[in-house]
Amino acid sequence: MGYDYLSPEHMKTNERITIVGAGLVGCLLACYLGKRGYKVTVYEKRADRRKASSGAGRSINLACSDRGWQALDHVGLGDAVRKEAIAMRGRMLHSKQSELSFQPYGIGDEAIYSVSRGGLNSTLMEHAEKDFGVEFVFDMKCMDVDLENAKANFKHYGSKEIITVESDVILATDGAFSRVRGIMQHLNHFDYSQDYIDSDYKELNIPAAADGSHVLDKEALHIWPRGRYMMIALPNPDGSFTCTLFMPYEGEDSFEQLNSTEEVHRFFKEVFPDAYPLMPTLEEDWNANPQASLVIIRCHPWHYKGKVCLLGDASHAIVPFYGQGMNSGFEDVYVLDGMIDAYNGDWSKILPAFAKQRKPDADAIADLALYNYRVMADSVNDPGFLLRKKLEHRIMELYPEKYKSLYSMVTFSHIRYSEAQRRGHAQDQRFKAIIKEHDIEGHFADGTIDDFIHKNLNTLITT
Amino acid sequence: MGYDYLSPEHMKTNERITIVGAGLVGCLLACYLGKRGYKVTVYEKRADRRKASSGAGRSINLACSDRGWQALDHVGLGDAVRKEAIAMRGRMLHSKQSELSFQPYGIGDEAIYSVSRGGLNSTLMEHAEKDFGVEFVFDMKCMDVDLENAKANFKHYGSKEIITVESDVILATDGAFSRVRGIMQHLNHFDYSQDYIDSDYKELNIPAAADGSHVLDKEALHIWPRGRYMMIALPNPDGSFTCTLFMPYEGEDSFEQLNSTEEVHRFFKEVFPDAYPLMPTLEEDWNANPQASLVIIRCHPWHYKGKVCLLGDASHAIVPFYGQGMNSGFEDVYVLDGMIDAYNGDWSKILPAFAKQRKPDADAIADLALYNYRVMADSVNDPGFLLRKKLEHRIMELYPEKYKSLYSMVTFSHIRYSEAQRRGHAQDQRFKAIIKEHDIEGHFADGTIDDFIHKNLNTLITT
Repeated sequence: MGYDYLSPEHMKTNERITIVGAGLVGCLLACYLGKRGYKVTVYEKRADRRKASSGAGRSINLACSDRGWQALDHVGLGDAVRKEAIAMRGRMLHSKQSELSFQPYGIGDEAIYSVSRGGLNSTLMEHAEKDFGVEFVFDMKCMDVDLENAKANFKHYGSKEIITVESDVILATDGAFSRVRGIMQHLNHFDYSQDYIDSDYKELNIPAAADGSHVLDKEALHIWPRGRYMMIALPNPDGSFTCTLFMPYEGEDSFEQLNSTEEVHRFFKEVFPDAYPLMPTLEEDWNANPQASLVIIRCHPWHYKGKVCLLGDASHAIVPFYGQGMNSGFEDVYVLDGMIDAYNGDWSKILPAFAKQRKPDADAIADLALYNYRVMADSVNDPGFLLRKKLEHRIMELYPEKYKSLYSMVTFSHIRYSEAQRRGHAQDQRFKAIIKEHDIEGHFADGTIDDFIHKNLNTLITT
Repeated sequence: MGYDYLSPEHMKTNERITIVGAGLVGCLLACYLGKRGYKVTVYEKRADRRKASSGAGRSINLACSDRGWQALDHVGLGDAVRKEAIAMRGRMLHSKQSELSFQPYGIGDEAIYSVSRGGLNSTLMEHAEKDFGVEFVFDMKCMDVDLENAKANFKHYGSKEIITVESDVILATDGAFSRVRGIMQHLNHFDYSQDYIDSDYKELNIPAAADGSHVLDKEALHIWPRGRYMMIALPNPDGSFTCTLFMPYEGEDSFEQLNSTEEVHRFFKEVFPDAYPLMPTLEEDWNANPQASLVIIRCHPWHYKGKVCLLGDASHAIVPFYGQGMNSGFEDVYVLDGMIDAYNGDWSKILPAFAKQRKPDADAIADLALYNYRVMADSVNDPGFLLRKKLEHRIMELYPEKYKSLYSMVTFSHIRYSEAQRRGHAQDQRFKAIIKEHDIEGHFADGTIDDFIHKNLNTLITT
């Protein structure tokens, strides 16, 4: 690795960049900018995660898909991450009667990959520091930012000392509750919204078998869809699965009602009958892990006069139901990097151009992710939805160059999210019309699906 | 006045209420609560307005309509305010060719009333202090609030001393940029949005004639509608008019383009040819008065555990185009007062019930006010819109008990905003259908309008 990827024409060793927040997006961004020769310092409010225990309450594994891989590969880190990733080739649905059904995500080798958040974060940090000359300063909480002059104050948790950092550009990757955005919120004409969805989540665990093997199919993302709530499970390399229960925080079928360990046991036994016996630490996990909330953040504009810019969750936190939170943040970094070339290192042009291009895509994936909660929790049980999935899957097998479902565009392509949303909407209209016109009753007799596709090909694949 | 309106059963002299912000809504709220016998203290960050000059940049006069009057009358203050109010019976439209046309707002005596913001604020403050035993503390900036315990810290502007105020309930009427809401924004599950509209505004002036009379019809709200921008003027008792120019802050026809005094003169002369000669202080006003922005604030929930609640702009700042900003804030106070009776002084029930009832109404008037910008700036010139207005006005004259236009429901009734919005939407559908069906071309021949109404009465007045 090392500096062999440097483009000397972009070497600006005199430019100092401050990154606020050493999460996934901040660390990847640090790699990109360090590689270009900028003098990059990352300030992180937590302790060095490589020395401390991993942060509780954050999702422990994540699904990395094509946008994430593209961004990692572009800076030469894809292979390092792939070593620890587990391919998930489709959804494995678990019914209340413990029946299993498998829906492939894509065609051929297409898969999404379960990666450990903590492991990935440490890997990125390590490479940023060792390969790309990035400096990390931990235990530093951002207190205030002088947006006009790209000066930031940080307070050290231990000494309580406040330092002022001057730089040419501040890039804020400090997450959904971004302090930098909190300061920008007071700017005139700054639009901002935070919307909590009705559901919270809690992480639980399915341990490995005694021999270290996975007790459920490890090549799938497991879903127990139950309408108003659902549980999912992603495989870990150590043979365990990390489960996440998503459910309303109040009202019918809610966390509020699961207010005793007896209730929790009764509930899991009843609604997740095949998972319950696999969760020996349910009670401990339930009590130890926080009930966390899910917020959608939108704001505009993301940048301030070529001096400060928000990226990742800081500018567009989304719900996790499309598996695109990290992927969209990584794609931000990839897009920003393209803008550095396009505008020859002139931040006064790079930041507005980046924000302008990326904002509609962030809005689109925010909407799609929210919509996918209903798909995952509910529609995956719907015969009409399953028919559509089956039809789309077969079209993609037959004509991989001519058709991509919305899911595939989001997950297995680099088509802009806003464009994927637009095409997906048009596909919806066409499929609805054709299914209605042909009065298809929920399934195809053997062999008839290909005939149907061939007959209606032009209508089905128009983009 | 004095204490003769007190309901002794609600005398809770042991309960202390802190009101944050001595604006219009805070002062009216103080009157209501003082009258009930609560020990009310209002903390205001500005100096005592009765001793200082009035705040620059805030709208200098406002339109008070039925909801405002109801809230003022209920606490016995309506007549004191009416003395200084000027009735505006309709819109006077000024075309680019200096043609005038008048659209009555309502029927019979119905009017909205131009009142001075500063004068009204001082009147309410005076009555709160003298008649209702309210204490005011000025120059006190709210720094922090302990929501759990209804404790607030205030910092005195002069001495910099910070005091902690303990009370039973904190009611925050600290406006669109509410500090109390800023603290609540960090609560889990607190939804919040701030949306700036594309237009800013600037206040200007049309002075009185030499003999002190008004140089335009004083019984009207004057509008110079120009599509993307507009100017309005409201009469003052001293013979002057306060004008407000609303226009985009950037792009075509924007403040950005009016970047020299020459440009300003050229622009006003061209687009407001009848107003320009009446504005001798245009240049001074332009340079002296700030270009202010317009923000829509939404949040949820408005209250915290029976201890803290937001009212007025702090919970639902809206754009001024329906003249309902103050009126909706005053109605908040009226509705809250009703809840105090309904829940017998139990704040743990009053605040949630108030917020639950009032939130949909606040959302409705926020939407309606935004929609009315287009109506005022644009539709008032549209023949279809004018036909509809004419038809509605005549229906209301003929059947005042059976029909109220959306404007009349909002302005001249106490029908809940959310209900007015619902009915208005249904009316729209019916009018569109009937106008299309009868292929009406933009006007009625003399005498035919009553015939038309009689023939279509049942369709037109269904609610």
